Amino acid sequence: MSKGTVVLAYSGGLDTSCILVWLKEQGYSVIAYLANIGQDEDFEAARKKAESLGATKVFIEDLRAEFVEDFIWPAIQANAVYEDRYLLGTAVARPCIGRRQVEIARREGAQFVSHGATGKGNDQIRFELTCYALYPEVKIIAPWRIPEFYNRFRGRKDLMEYAQQHGIPVPVTPKAPWSMDANLMHIRWVRLASFIMFSFSISLFNHAPADLYLMTKNPEDAPSAPDVLEIEFKIGVPVKVTNVKEGISKDSPLDIFTYLNEIGGKHGVGRIDIVENRFIGMKSRGIYETPGGTILLNVHLDIEAFTMDKEVRRVKQGLGIKFSELVYNGFWYSPECDFVRHCIAMSQVNVEGKVQLSVFKGQVYILGRESPKSLYNEELVSMDVQGDYDPCDASGFIRINAVRLREYHRLQGFPSIKQ
Amino acid sequence: MSKGTVVLAYSGGLDTSCILVWLKEQGYSVIAYLANIGQDEDFEAARKKAESLGATKVFIEDLRAEFVEDFIWPAIQANAVYEDRYLLGTAVARPCIGRRQVEIARREGAQFVSHGATGKGNDQIRFELTCYALYPEVKIIAPWRIPEFYNRFRGRKDLMEYAQQHGIPVPVTPKAPWSMDANLMHIRWVRLASFIMFSFSISLFNHAPADLYLMTKNPEDAPSAPDVLEIEFKIGVPVKVTNVKEGISKDSPLDIFTYLNEIGGKHGVGRIDIVENRFIGMKSRGIYETPGGTILLNVHLDIEAFTMDKEVRRVKQGLGIKFSELVYNGFWYSPECDFVRHCIAMSQVNVEGKVQLSVFKGQVYILGRESPKSLYNEELVSMDVQGDYDPCDASGFIRINAVRLREYHRLQGFPSIKQ
Amino acid sequence: MSKGTVVLAYSGGLDTSCILVWLKEQGYSVIAYLANIGQDEDFEAARKKAESLGATKVFIEDLRAEFVEDFIWPAIQANAVYEDRYLLGTAVARPCIGRRQVEIARREGAQFVSHGATGKGNDQIRFELTCYALYPEVKIIAPWRIPEFYNRFRGRKDLMEYAQQHGIPVPVTPKAPWSMDANLMHIRWVRLASFIMFSFSISLFNHAPADLYLMTKNPEDAPSAPDVLEIEFKIGVPVKVTNVKEGISKDSPLDIFTYLNEIGGKHGVGRIDIVENRFIGMKSRGIYETPGGTILLNVHLDIEAFTMDKEVRRVKQGLGIKFSELVYNGFWYSPECDFVRHCIAMSQVNVEGKVQLSVFKGQVYILGRESPKSLYNEELVSMDVQGDYDPCDASGFIRINAVRLREYHRLQGFPSIKQ
Amino acid sequence: MSKGTVVLAYSGGLDTSCILVWLKEQGYSVIAYLANIGQDEDFEAARKKAESLGATKVFIEDLRAEFVEDFIWPAIQANAVYEDRYLLGTAVARPCIGRRQVEIARREGAQFVSHGATGKGNDQIRFELTCYALYPEVKIIAPWRIPEFYNRFRGRKDLMEYAQQHGIPVPVTPKAPWSMDANLMHIRWVRLASFIMFSFSISLFNHAPADLYLMTKNPEDAPSAPDVLEIEFKIGVPVKVTNVKEGISKDSPLDIFTYLNEIGGKHGVGRIDIVENRFIGMKSRGIYETPGGTILLNVHLDIEAFTMDKEVRRVKQGLGIKFSELVYNGFWYSPECDFVRHCIAMSQVNVEGKVQLSVFKGQVYILGRESPKSLYNEELVSMDVQGDYDPCDASGFIRINAVRLREYHRLQGFPSIKQ
Repeated sequence: MSKGTVVLAYSGGLDTSCILVWLKEQGYSVIAYLANIGQDEDFEAARKKAESLGATKVFIEDLRAEFVEDFIWPAIQANAVYEDRYLLGTAVARPCIGRRQVEIARREGAQFVSHGATGKGNDQIRFELTCYALYPEVKIIAPWRIPEFYNRFRGRKDLMEYAQQHGIPVPVTPKAPWSMDANLMHIRWVRLASFIMFSFSISLFNHAPADLYLMTKNPEDAPSAPDVLEIEFKIGVPVKVTNVKEGISKDSPLDIFTYLNEIGGKHGVGRIDIVENRFIGMKSRGIYETPGGTILLNVHLDIEAFTMDKEVRRVKQGLGIKFSELVYNGFWYSPECDFVRHCIAMSQVNVEGKVQLSVFKGQVYILGRESPKSLYNEELVSMDVQGDYDPCDASGFIRINAVRLREYHRLQGFPSIKQ
Repeated sequence: MSKGTVVLAYSGGLDTSCILVWLKEQGYSVIAYLANIGQDEDFEAARKKAESLGATKVFIEDLRAEFVEDFIWPAIQANAVYEDRYLLGTAVARPCIGRRQVEIARREGAQFVSHGATGKGNDQIRFELTCYALYPEVKIIAPWRIPEFYNRFRGRKDLMEYAQQHGIPVPVTPKAPWSMDANLMHIRWVRLASFIMFSFSISLFNHAPADLYLMTKNPEDAPSAPDVLEIEFKIGVPVKVTNVKEGISKDSPLDIFTYLNEIGGKHGVGRIDIVENRFIGMKSRGIYETPGGTILLNVHLDIEAFTMDKEVRRVKQGLGIKFSELVYNGFWYSPECDFVRHCIAMSQVNVEGKVQLSVFKGQVYILGRESPKSLYNEELVSMDVQGDYDPCDASGFIRINAVRLREYHRLQGFPSIKQ
Repeated sequence: MSKGTVVLAYSGGLDTSCILVWLKEQGYSVIAYLANIGQDEDFEAARKKAESLGATKVFIEDLRAEFVEDFIWPAIQANAVYEDRYLLGTAVARPCIGRRQVEIARREGAQFVSHGATGKGNDQIRFELTCYALYPEVKIIAPWRIPEFYNRFRGRKDLMEYAQQHGIPVPVTPKAPWSMDANLMHIRWVRLASFIMFSFSISLFNHAPADLYLMTKNPEDAPSAPDVLEIEFKIGVPVKVTNVKEGISKDSPLDIFTYLNEIGGKHGVGRIDIVENRFIGMKSRGIYETPGGTILLNVHLDIEAFTMDKEVRRVKQGLGIKFSELVYNGFWYSPECDFVRHCIAMSQVNVEGKVQLSVFKGQVYILGRESPKSLYNEELVSMDVQGDYDPCDASGFIRINAVRLREYHRLQGFPSIKQ
Repeated sequence: MSKGTVVLAYSGGLDTSCILVWLKEQGYSVIAYLANIGQDEDFEAARKKAESLGATKVFIEDLRAEFVEDFIWPAIQANAVYEDRYLLGTAVARPCIGRRQVEIARREGAQFVSHGATGKGNDQIRFELTCYALYPEVKIIAPWRIPEFYNRFRGRKDLMEYAQQHGIPVPVTPKAPWSMDANLMHIRWVRLASFIMFSFSISLFNHAPADLYLMTKNPEDAPSAPDVLEIEFKIGVPVKVTNVKEGISKDSPLDIFTYLNEIGGKHGVGRIDIVENRFIGMKSRGIYETPGGTILLNVHLDIEAFTMDKEVRRVKQGLGIKFSELVYNGFWYSPECDFVRHCIAMSQVNVEGKVQLSVFKGQVYILGRESPKSLYNEELVSMDVQGDYDPCDASGFIRINAVRLREYHRLQGFPSIKQ
C-alpha cells in the first residue's frame, strides 16, 4: 500500500532520478514535475525518462513567462542585489518553481513534496518555505537530509551504481568538476571537487576556468564593436527594447528578457566571482553569469534616478535591500515580502521613460535618457536662468545646516589636523 | 583701510582670478590658497599669477597624501557610493581642501574665507559646512551668491572683459562646452552650454562626446590583454598592490592609489554617466571617471565579504549608505559622520587579506582571494565532510522559520496563481 | 494701490493682530483666516476683532473633523513619536491649517500668505513647506524674519504700544511667563522669560509649575478610581470607544478623540517635559499634554502587535520612525511622506479588534484584547498541545543559528569574563 | 560508566529537580549550577536540595553585580526596548547566566550543559546560543525537546509523581495558575492553565489578576505623595541616585539599581501586559513588572536627548532597535551584537549630567536636567538674543527645502482637499 503521493521536483539528472526511484522503494507514489524556467534541457526526453522510472504522472510546465513577469520584474523594480553583488537569479526562481509544484500537489491530492536540494544550501530553504507558505499542511521529503538516504549515497559512485541497478540512464561524466544551476536569469556555478563528490568548496584563491561560462562570451572574445540599445520602461519594468543600429525590437516580457540575455551574453556582460553569506550562516563561493539581468539593473537604476524623488528613492533603497535579503533567504511568500513588494511597486508608478545604452566587452554604458515623468528641470538646474531659484537662499540653507555643527565643535573642540 | 583678510580657495582659472581681484576691489586683503589634490596643474605658474593679481600671500599645499589616507581610505572602508552609483570623488575632496584652508585662516588671523563655487551646486555646501564646523566664527564670502557679483558677471564674456581690464591672463577658450573638476580620485564633467554660460544642464538624452575623458582610455581603444593585480588589505585599506605579470609593486597609500589610477585608466575603468540628486533638491547629470576608486570598491567589497560576519556586514552596509549621504551632502565634519566613520572603522579590524583581479576593457574581474582572518570554512561548507554540521538541523531551522508563514497563510489565505 | 492680497493665519492674539495691521501699513490687502482645530477660543470675537482691524475678509474654518481623520489618524496608524517621546501634536496640525489657508489663497486669488511663527522654531518650516508644496507660486511673508518688523518689535512692550496706537484690543497680561500652542491633540508649553520677551528658553533644570497644565488634571488630584474603556479598531484607527462602567459610547472620529481627551485629561494622562531637537539644529525644551493621543498610541501599539506579522511590524516600525521625522520637520506634503504614509496605511489592513484598558493617575494599562484578525494561535503557543509544532525542530533552528557564532568565536576567540 | 558530565542550570524548583534526577538516570554525572541574579530564593536550601538529589557538585554564583554592570547597563545605554514596549528583563539575564555556566563547564571539564527551558520559548534559544558561542564544542541537553522526556512528563502530575518516587521534595501547589521568571531587572508572568500543565497561553482578552504582581505595588494602593529623585549619569549609565527629600543616596551599580527597584516598586512603576512576537515565530502574551528599568529608560532618554547631537541620536536610535532585536533573539554573544554594542557605547561618551524626576502612581515624570556636556545653548535658542543666529537664514533654509516639493507638485499635481 502506498504511503501517499509525492510531487517531486524533477530535473531529469542523476540525482533526482535516483530520488524518484528511491521514493518508490520507500513506498510512495511519485509524480514527477519539471519546470521549464529557461534552462537548456530536452524536456521530452526528461518526460520519457521519468515515465520509464515509474512516475505515475509527469508534468512539464513552461513557467518562463510567469517567471519573468511575476518574479524577475519585481526584482528589477527593487534593484534587487544581495550583499551588493549577487542579482538573485536562483533565489527568484525557487518560489516560481515551488508555487507550481504546490498547485500540482493540491490539485492531485498529494500530501508530500520532495526535492533534490542539498542540506547545506539556500535552495532547500527557499523551496520549502514556499511550500509551507502556500500549502501549510504539506509534508516535505528532503532526501539529502535523511540519514538513510545520505548515508547510502555518499558520492557520485554510489548514485551511479544505484542508477545502473535500477535502469536509470547514466549521464556522461562531466568534464569539469563544476555543477551548475541554470535558468532564464542566470547560471550559477559551484565547484565539485573531482575526488570529493558534491563538494561545494574550492580554494577561494584559485581562479575559475576561463571556459566555464555558458551564457556569456569571454569579454576578451566579445565583438570589438558595441551594440546600442534603447529600453523603454513603464511602472519600473521594461516594455520594449530596440537595437538601435539593427532595428530589432521586442516587446513582450519574455522576448525582452531573452533578447537582453542574447545581447548581454554576446558581449560578456554579468560575470561575477564572489563570496556570499548563506542564510544558514556559512560563507560560500559562487560564480554567476547574469547577462540580461545585469543590463536591466543598470538601466533601471538610471531611469529610476531620473524620475523618482530623491527622498522617496532613499526610503525605497532601504526597502530594496530588505527585499533582497528576504528573497535570498527564501521568504518570497511571506507577509513581510508581500508588504515590501507592494511598497516598492507603489514607488514605481512614475518610473517611465527611455534609456539609451551601449553594451561592450562586459560593460553596460548609459548614454542618455528621457522621460515624460522626469523630475529633472533643465531651467531650474541651469546656472544662468534664475527662475524660481534664488542663489541667496543657499546661504541661509547652509547656515542653518551649520547651526548644529558650529555648536558642537565649539563645545567639543576640533579634530586635529591628522584625524 | 582693509575690511579684513580673506583666504580664497584659488584654482588658477578665470573665475577665481576674477574673484581675487574683485575681493581686493571690495577692500579685502586676499591670501590665495591652492590645494594640490592631484589635479593636473602648473602650480608654480598659478603661484605667480596669484601674486601678480595682488594676493598678499600664496599658499600652494600638497595635500595628496592626506587626501588618500584621511579621506579616500575611509570612503573605501565604507564602500561609499551615493545613490548606488557615484563614488563621491568630489565630495571627499572638499573637506580635505576646506580643512587646510581653515587652518591657514586661523594661522594667518583671517576672519574670512571665500570660494568660487556656484550657488546651485553641492560644492558650496560641502566647502562651507567644513569651514563652519572647523572655524565656527568664520565669515564666508561666496561671490556667486552675492547679487552685486553675479549680476555683474552674467556670463563668460563679462568675466573675460573684466580679466582684460584688470590684467588677468585670459585662458584659451576651451573647445568643448564641458567644465571639469579633477582630483586624484576622479574627474567630474558637467556641460556648459555654448551659448548659455555656466549652464550645468544639457538634454539628458544626448550622449557625452567620446573624446571627453582624460583619466580613462576609451574601453574600445584599451589594450586587448588584461593586467592582473594582487592587492593586499589590512584593516580594510590597501597596503600593497602588485602587478602580477610585470612584477611592479607599490606600498605607500599615495603610490598605491596613483598606480591603480594608472592601470584603471589604461583599461578604461570607472566611467559613468548618471543623473543624481543634489542636496539642494535638484537632479543633475554628471559624467565621472574614477579608475582607481572603482577598482578599490570592487576589491574591498570582495575582501570584506570574505572576512566579515554576515550580520555585521548588514549593519555596516546601512552605516555605509548613511556615510555616503553625509559625505555627499557636505557633513564630513559633523558629529554624526564622525560617529558613523568610527563605527565603520571598527568593523574593518579583520578586513585583511589578498585579492587577485584582472582589469580589462572597462571591467574589474575578481579572480580569487585569501585571508588569515577568513570566516570561510572549507570543511564546514563542503557537502561530504559533515564535521559539526548536521543536515538534519536544517529541517528544524526551516520548519521553525515556517511557523509564522504557515499561520499567516492559513488565516489570510493564499495568493492566486497570478499574484 | 495694493501690493496684493495676503491670507494671514490669524490667531486672534496680540502678535497676529499687530501683523494684520502692519501688513495693511505695508500696502497689502489682508484676508484673516482662523482655523478651528479644537483650541479654546471665542471665534466670533476673533472674527469681529479681525474685521475691526481692517481685514477685507475673515474666514473662520472648522477643521476639527478633518484634523482628526486626515492628520491624527495617520499618526496613530504610524505610532508616530518623535525622538521616542513627542507625539507630534503641533506638527500634525500645521499641514492641516496650511492646506486650508492655501485653498483660500487660491480661491481668493491671493498671491501671498503670512503667519506669525517666529524665526527659530519648527512651525515656520512646517507652515511654509505646506504652502510651497500645495501652491508652488505662492509668496510668503514671515514678519518675524523681516528685519523691518523684528527690529521694530523687540519685545512685548513694543507690540503693546503698537496695539494701543492702532486700536488693537490689548489682552490682559498673562500671569505666567509661558506661551502655549493648543489644539485638539495637545497643548504645548514654552516659557517666556518675564523680562525677556519671546524667549523660548528657560534653565532646563527648573521644574515646570504644577498649575501650568490645562488639558490634563494633575495626576495627584485625579480620581482615585480608574475608568475602564474598550476601544474598537478597524484598519488601524479607532471606530468606537465605550466606557465599560458608564455605558457611554462614541463612534465618530471627532467624538471618539474628544472623549478620549476628556477621559485622559481627567486622569492626568500624557504629560511630558522633554528636550527635543528642532529641525533647525537647536535643542529646545517643550512641555506637552496629549491625553487622548497618549491613550491611542498605547492602545494602537497593542492591537497592532496582536494582529500584525512580526516581520511586517519590523519594517513598518522603521517607516513609522521615518514618518515621524518627516512630519516633525514639516514634510507632510512631500513625495516621501506620501509614499511612507501609503505604505503604513497598507500595513493596517488587518489591524482590527478590541482592546480593554484602564486609565488611572496618569497611566494607561492594557487589560486585554481580542481580534477576528489575530495572528495569535492559542493552540500553537500552548506547551501541551503539540499540533503542528515539533519541539525537536527548535534544536535544528538553534544549531543552524549557532553555525556562524561558533565559527566566529572559534576563530576570533572568546570574550573574557569581564567584557 | 558515566556518559559524561553535565552542568545543569538548576533553579531549585520542581522541573529542574526532576531533570537533575533524570539526567543521572540517563547515565550522566550532574553538576548543579544556580545563578543568583536577584531572584527571591533560598540559595542554601537549593544547594542542599541539589546535593541530596545527587549533584556531584553545586555552584551557587552571585552574579548580581555583573548582571547590572555588564548586561543591564548596556541595555540602558541602548534604550533597549523590544517591539516598542518590552524592556528585555529576561533576555538580558540569559547571556549572563549562560556565560558563567559555560565557564564552569570548561573549568570542570564538562562536555554537556543542560537547562529546563521549554521547547516553544525564547529562553532555550538565548541560553543555547550563548553556550554555543562561548563553548563551540559543547553539547546541549534540552530535556523538554527530547521525546523520551517530554512524552514521559506530560503534565505537572507526572512531574509530581516522579518527584515522589525519587525523593524530590514537592513544592506546595501554587495558588494561581501563573508561572514566573524573576531577576533583579524584572518579573515576567505567564499563565499556566490549571488543567493543562505548562500552557503559556490564556485568552488574551481576560485581565490579569490584580494580586499577581510581586515587585510592584498596585498603583491604586501606592503612596499618595511622590518620591523625587536625582540621578546622575556618566557615559550613559547612572553613577548616583539621590532621594531628594529623604537624603538617601546610592552609588554602586548594584545599589543604584536595587534602590530604583525599591522606589519604582513602591509606586507601582513598570507594569505592562503585552502581546509580543517570539523569535520562533509565534505571538505570546507576557505580563511584566520592571520598576527600576522603567525609571532608568525614561531618565536615560532624557539625559541623552539633552547631550547628544540629533543626527547621532538618529543613527544611534536605529542601532538601539537592532540591539534590542538581537538581545531578544538570543544573540548577545554574536559578532553583530558586539559590534552594535561597541558603537552604542561610543555614542555615550558625552551622555553625562543630572536628571530630576518624580515617581508617582505608576508614572515617572521628568522635572528637569542639567549637564556639563549639554548641547543646549540658551542664548542660541532664545528669541531675543540673536547672537550668531540670523532669522533671515531660515527663509533660505525653507526655500531650498521646498525646491524639490514645489517641482514635484508642479509636475504631479496636488492632493485633493480630502486626501
